[in-house]
Amino acid sequence: MNIKDKLLEAIATKKVVVGVIGLGYVGLPLAVSFAKKGVKVLGFEKSVKKAQAVNEGRNYIADIEDSDLAQVQEKGLLSATTDFSRIAEVDAVIICVPTPLDKYKKPDMSFIEASCKDIGKHMKKGTFISLESTTYPTTTEDFMKPIIEKESGMREGNDFWLCFSPERVDPGNKTYKTANTPKVVGALGKDAQEIALALYGIAIENLYPVSSPRVAEMVKILENTYRLVNISMINEIALLSGKMNINIWEVIEAAKSKPYGFQAFYPGPGIGGHCIPLDPFYLEHIAKGLNFDLTMINTAGNINNLMPYRMMNKIAFALNRQKKAMNGSKVLFLGVAYKPDIDDARESPALLVMDLVARKGAKVSFHDPYIAEVTDEHGRLWKGVHLTDDAISQADCVVFTTNHSCFDVPRIVEKAKLVVDTRNAVKSVSIEDDKVFKL
Amino acid sequence: MNIKDKLLEAIATKKVVVGVIGLGYVGLPLAVSFAKKGVKVLGFEKSVKKAQAVNEGRNYIADIEDSDLAQVQEKGLLSATTDFSRIAEVDAVIICVPTPLDKYKKPDMSFIEASCKDIGKHMKKGTFISLESTTYPTTTEDFMKPIIEKESGMREGNDFWLCFSPERVDPGNKTYKTANTPKVVGALGKDAQEIALALYGIAIENLYPVSSPRVAEMVKILENTYRLVNISMINEIALLSGKMNINIWEVIEAAKSKPYGFQAFYPGPGIGGHCIPLDPFYLEHIAKGLNFDLTMINTAGNINNLMPYRMMNKIAFALNRQKKAMNGSKVLFLGVAYKPDIDDARESPALLVMDLVARKGAKVSFHDPYIAEVTDEHGRLWKGVHLTDDAISQADCVVFTTNHSCFDVPRIVEKAKLVVDTRNAVKSVSIEDDKVFKL
Repeated sequence: MNIKDKLLEAIATKKVVVGVIGLGYVGLPLAVSFAKKGVKVLGFEKSVKKAQAVNEGRNYIADIEDSDLAQVQEKGLLSATTDFSRIAEVDAVIICVPTPLDKYKKPDMSFIEASCKDIGKHMKKGTFISLESTTYPTTTEDFMKPIIEKESGMREGNDFWLCFSPERVDPGNKTYKTANTPKVVGALGKDAQEIALALYGIAIENLYPVSSPRVAEMVKILENTYRLVNISMINEIALLSGKMNINIWEVIEAAKSKPYGFQAFYPGPGIGGHCIPLDPFYLEHIAKGLNFDLTMINTAGNINNLMPYRMMNKIAFALNRQKKAMNGSKVLFLGVAYKPDIDDARESPALLVMDLVARKGAKVSFHDPYIAEVTDEHGRLWKGVHLTDDAISQADCVVFTTNHSCFDVPRIVEKAKLVVDTRNAVKSVSIEDDKVFKL
Repeated sequence: MNIKDKLLEAIATKKVVVGVIGLGYVGLPLAVSFAKKGVKVLGFEKSVKKAQAVNEGRNYIADIEDSDLAQVQEKGLLSATTDFSRIAEVDAVIICVPTPLDKYKKPDMSFIEASCKDIGKHMKKGTFISLESTTYPTTTEDFMKPIIEKESGMREGNDFWLCFSPERVDPGNKTYKTANTPKVVGALGKDAQEIALALYGIAIENLYPVSSPRVAEMVKILENTYRLVNISMINEIALLSGKMNINIWEVIEAAKSKPYGFQAFYPGPGIGGHCIPLDPFYLEHIAKGLNFDLTMINTAGNINNLMPYRMMNKIAFALNRQKKAMNGSKVLFLGVAYKPDIDDARESPALLVMDLVARKGAKVSFHDPYIAEVTDEHGRLWKGVHLTDDAISQADCVVFTTNHSCFDVPRIVEKAKLVVDTRNAVKSVSIEDDKVFKL
């Protein structure tokens, strides 16, 4: 039996051992999804703390049921290690590492590169390798393949197989989790695609095969570029609407009554999270190398970058209406999570606004029911305060930066001296009144 | 009984007489919708030909059933006139005139202005006036109201009422027609809104009231700006994808497998029709007056404007592959309608590409099963040819510019020497082969 048929048989009989590199919000749910189907999963994780948690059956990702993780760990179906030489033990390895941007918005490929080197060094012949991290089109073929071939001395398509299958994790989504979100799969060559569909078919309900890794890479970028562009567009129109005394939130709700050809996006103090503010710039990176200027992404990025400054201005001029300077005023921010009802502050625009306002001399504090403390990009640690009546009433300005559904908005507005609402938290006010200023 | 209650009673008893100014693709379906509910409608139309057709029960709008129009005309519920002094006979008047842009992309308000003057001159006290034409926010209040008050000597809110309720007609849509598409209604003041909802409630199944005309004006612009921005974005990404050997249509279909947060738009040779290429520039116009630069609309507009030039290049370099110059080559365009399966060539990008290619010396012809002849923006009349085997095989290049579903694509590709496909008509080819070049 050749190595391909051997792997396919191992998959069919669920004797395949799956390695997952990176046990974060993408990798851990995927690992649990495989393990729940009876497949043995070995997680590779640089953080000793995380690996230990997994090996003790302790869950640290909100979208996973604690009991699901505990059960598969107990059954011996899921374990984790910090020892990457154990890649030799697995038949398939799925890479779920971060792909951040550096401060010049250039892709930081170091995590993918390190994974490829580890795999190349340690894998056995006949290993299937899939990348889930968002990256620029051509990465799998032109970036990963040469590294793995060089490190291993093996040949892609002959000795190992390559695939790109983008993660679509939407933290906090109650309906769509890892297992029931359709998954795009684009492997390199027919054999790889056959293996990819068989393997992912164990853990994922619906697969959507495409003709190549680069198509799959572009799919993920398109999905998130769509979001970046539309959020930026509505932010720009929101700023104009404010000048024209038009409540943009009322406009959006009314536009939603159109039963075709419209999807609603909402303005805010900027765009946060680990995908939308980053992914489109991966595409911009590869486009630049082709002398191609992606003007829409560029324009959208500019609008997004400016939003925190616009919000700082909004707060300054709201205080100004009450004859107060920002310098010396107390400003309390409500919510630092990048979206409602989650505990994740990555790339959160709230942190950018807090930093800007603090630099102008304001005494800044924050409260977030899901986040007790947070470190901003300058390494500054912010500690949350309790949302007492005193905390609210002593602030010169209270700013809604995340629309957590548990906020008692009427109480906060009643106690506050001044409110800046960047999220339409205060539904009773159209654009502004004496106390409340909306984006 | 005061004039408001009188009008409400006339509406409730369906004795109200409704005037509709402009019997085009918006006004005539609306007039028929009211008449079908037993309300007497008088259409005002400058074109003697159109007025005559209506008065003879002859339909000229594809989205209206011929028998519907014939029946309401026969029953005496619908008639048309070119005599605008008869506005004195109606209780409510709905304006459905065009709002084009001039060649400098400035709004041409002359049709709305003329309607307001006619109304002001002739209306009786207690007339309800609603505008459906897309225009910049503040038009109803700041542009229409002063004209009507001046012409009539009457006072808005006292002697007449004003409303903005944007048309959402989508020509060729088989599901959503005038009567069953939810309608946004934003009148000036409570009385006007009460009348507006009662009146439109006769003909339209679902109304969505908003707080002011300017909100309703912005709703319509947002809907179409959303489309402009997204089509432009996908056009730009399509051009990049071509350079990267990625089939953008495959990417879009795969992205659609995401069950939330994505809506598909498709690339093409440019954006056509009477709404999407125009409406956003109404917003840009008013924004400029407020020293506000709408960078997203501006960028989207630029991409859109460039697409016909890109398509001209595509055709030139496809011919070049066969060692032919565009100058002297025969180029046959398939489809001049701005979208599939309709007979409307307004603002059609096909016409722009045809003009560009002809200016480079090509012998240009076109075939469109729905359009026998068409006049371009330079006043040049183009006459269609029959889609014979000879017409196809004698062309040096055949260009798909509209994706009419009746095109026999395999036959056309077989007979053609060379095909440029701007619409993914040729599904069997990914990016290009020896004969077919895709956008």
